[in-house]
Amino acid sequence: MTATRDDASERDAADGLVVWRDEFVIDPDGPIYLDGNSLGRLPKRTRARLAQVIDDDWGRDLVGSWEHWVDLPAQVGDLLGASLLLARGGEVVMGDSTTVCLYKLASAALAARPGAIVTDAANFPTDRYVLAGLAEATGRRLVQMDCDAVDGPEADAVAQACTDAGEVALVSLSHVSYRSGALCDMPAITDAAHAAGALTLWDLCHSVGAVEVDLTSAGADLAVGCTYKYVNGGPGSPAFMYVRAELQDELHQPIWGWFAQRDQFAMGPAHDPAPGITAFLSGTPPILGLVAAEEGVRLLDLAGMAAVRAKSECLTAYAVELFDEWLAPIGASLGTPRDPRRRGAHVSIRHPDAERLCALLQEGGVVTDFRTPDSIRFGMPPLYVRFVDVFDAFDALRALLAG
Amino acid sequence: MTATRDDASERDAADGLVVWRDEFVIDPDGPIYLDGNSLGRLPKRTRARLAQVIDDDWGRDLVGSWEHWVDLPAQVGDLLGASLLLARGGEVVMGDSTTVCLYKLASAALAARPGAIVTDAANFPTDRYVLAGLAEATGRRLVQMDCDAVDGPEADAVAQACTDAGEVALVSLSHVSYRSGALCDMPAITDAAHAAGALTLWDLCHSVGAVEVDLTSAGADLAVGCTYKYVNGGPGSPAFMYVRAELQDELHQPIWGWFAQRDQFAMGPAHDPAPGITAFLSGTPPILGLVAAEEGVRLLDLAGMAAVRAKSECLTAYAVELFDEWLAPIGASLGTPRDPRRRGAHVSIRHPDAERLCALLQEGGVVTDFRTPDSIRFGMPPLYVRFVDVFDAFDALRALLAG
Repeated sequence: MTATRDDASERDAADGLVVWRDEFVIDPDGPIYLDGNSLGRLPKRTRARLAQVIDDDWGRDLVGSWEHWVDLPAQVGDLLGASLLLARGGEVVMGDSTTVCLYKLASAALAARPGAIVTDAANFPTDRYVLAGLAEATGRRLVQMDCDAVDGPEADAVAQACTDAGEVALVSLSHVSYRSGALCDMPAITDAAHAAGALTLWDLCHSVGAVEVDLTSAGADLAVGCTYKYVNGGPGSPAFMYVRAELQDELHQPIWGWFAQRDQFAMGPAHDPAPGITAFLSGTPPILGLVAAEEGVRLLDLAGMAAVRAKSECLTAYAVELFDEWLAPIGASLGTPRDPRRRGAHVSIRHPDAERLCALLQEGGVVTDFRTPDSIRFGMPPLYVRFVDVFDAFDALRALLAG
Repeated sequence: MTATRDDASERDAADGLVVWRDEFVIDPDGPIYLDGNSLGRLPKRTRARLAQVIDDDWGRDLVGSWEHWVDLPAQVGDLLGASLLLARGGEVVMGDSTTVCLYKLASAALAARPGAIVTDAANFPTDRYVLAGLAEATGRRLVQMDCDAVDGPEADAVAQACTDAGEVALVSLSHVSYRSGALCDMPAITDAAHAAGALTLWDLCHSVGAVEVDLTSAGADLAVGCTYKYVNGGPGSPAFMYVRAELQDELHQPIWGWFAQRDQFAMGPAHDPAPGITAFLSGTPPILGLVAAEEGVRLLDLAGMAAVRAKSECLTAYAVELFDEWLAPIGASLGTPRDPRRRGAHVSIRHPDAERLCALLQEGGVVTDFRTPDSIRFGMPPLYVRFVDVFDAFDALRALLAG
């Protein structure tokens, strides 16, 4: 093909999701924003909801609002679980930061299973650090697989790592790689982990709201994920925890707190955790971030994840087309799998000069981000990114590389 | 005396802090709110700041705002530490929920010291549960002192508990009791703990912003506290952690995350914690709650904690006067120490029928709260509670008890 902006516009005109862009606060004169994989945009209804919660719930109703706030972690968790993860009711709850949630679920898994921890050396830093801390604290071995920089962890490599490790308690991976955007084969890897007697703990930060996640069919055991990327929950909005129903009685998290108590206001002498997913809570939930996350989930639920994923594959495929035509011939390489079924909602372009190029793109009004050592990430959340945005961003990078 | 509403009004007219009430969103036709010890009111400048952060920082500047957001945990921590705790720079950082912060600091203390954990059987539930979980996980004994229900833990009782326990790693208490409002003698108890070789971990939830806290003079080792009570940071706003500077190299918290990393975006292979208090961070901070907490701290800083505490002692003394005149003769008892230097900013009235009375007060437009088994808490944050509010609330309780 010979890419033209008119062609990109025609793709936008044919896009059934284009109406959702109006749901977001977007300055028409603002930059092209392809960093929703880091911080998602502000939905208009979230702005309105936050104003309502601040003015009415907090400002006017004050402590009385806890009568409904107290149910939010489970309610929003159920909504997110049903809409975005195909989890069953009572399997998802909103928690603290992703780091703390990972710590709690990994701790619970290690307390229940002997053996090593298997992860990917290219897993997101906080995941590796949390697992390393737990490995040290519990005297476990932490196996960090060296996987292909583009394709990420495969089921056979996980099986081999488990075999080599002897006994494995936990396999913990990111569903979609933060750097390459590679999407793991969750069912196959889960099967491999289970065959080795290990539990699985998935980090869904880059897949929730970006790809269709089906934790139930995959047989996943545990998962966490943030809500400030594709779920558009705002800066530092809370993460969620998923614990497969059949495991909830067996697994025990280490941070015992009053929000996990069976009868919270009895304030009894001993920790007596509530049944089910509530036992995985700890302290007072961050209400502002929680309601913002709820609105973000609702938007995706209304748009429908099948439609979101379908458009996402088209957007990333278009980016790969533009890469092939414009960037491959002038020194860039593709850092993301070519098969749309094997990638999430961002495309990474690798170049030795990536950090400087990313800064120049930003100066030119195209917001992406750099990930060491050599990747520029182009994030394309389908609810608000248009084909013309992708065209313009890649055109800008072409001009920089050609210049 | 014979209490009159005119007398209460005169006290308000003479109150130098009365101007600060205008800084809060208050419906003149709304209820009398004496539950700021549970959830503080909404400051007007916080509403404005949140709108700015939501619209400009998130909605317009998007991921670019992380350039300044990333410093907020330490910046707000320093502001809070200097204004409200007399901590030195670099000793306080904003973290996760109080429960998670307690877990992290208690874990760090237990990893550094052998022996038992000493607390108070009447300590706040989440504190006791966190400590019980850590005692179980680390094979320590958890000593729960039985203290006087009104006066709370005293230094000699702590010394005796440490002696009885043999070897003590950690003494963890609430500075102000959530139920009785009793204020511990922090310097004396810290000395007793240190004499036994233990570290101290103070829960400041009911004292930060309510009483003058001087962690430095007291020689306190560790502390946590929430910001949604007297600091007016809003529902579920983040807690803070204090680690005495001299201990920061020795103590290591267990939840290793990317916000504690020396070079966060190098995303290096191993956890390499930053020096100082930053090493106590874990994951992405909750920005909305954090900026709301910052505004709350600023308000208290502007008003000045000496003036806040002076008014608070007058408010609670007035409440005790009204109790003596009206309530003591008709079956209520005082659940809070009589010496103003030994109590925080709320007064508890005990009555066998407290739960029902609290509900009736609420129906009559007076918001307090009930704490099992028999306490009604009257919270009097000095920035917005007036003497007439105390008069009207106690008058309402008098009418209920007389009726």
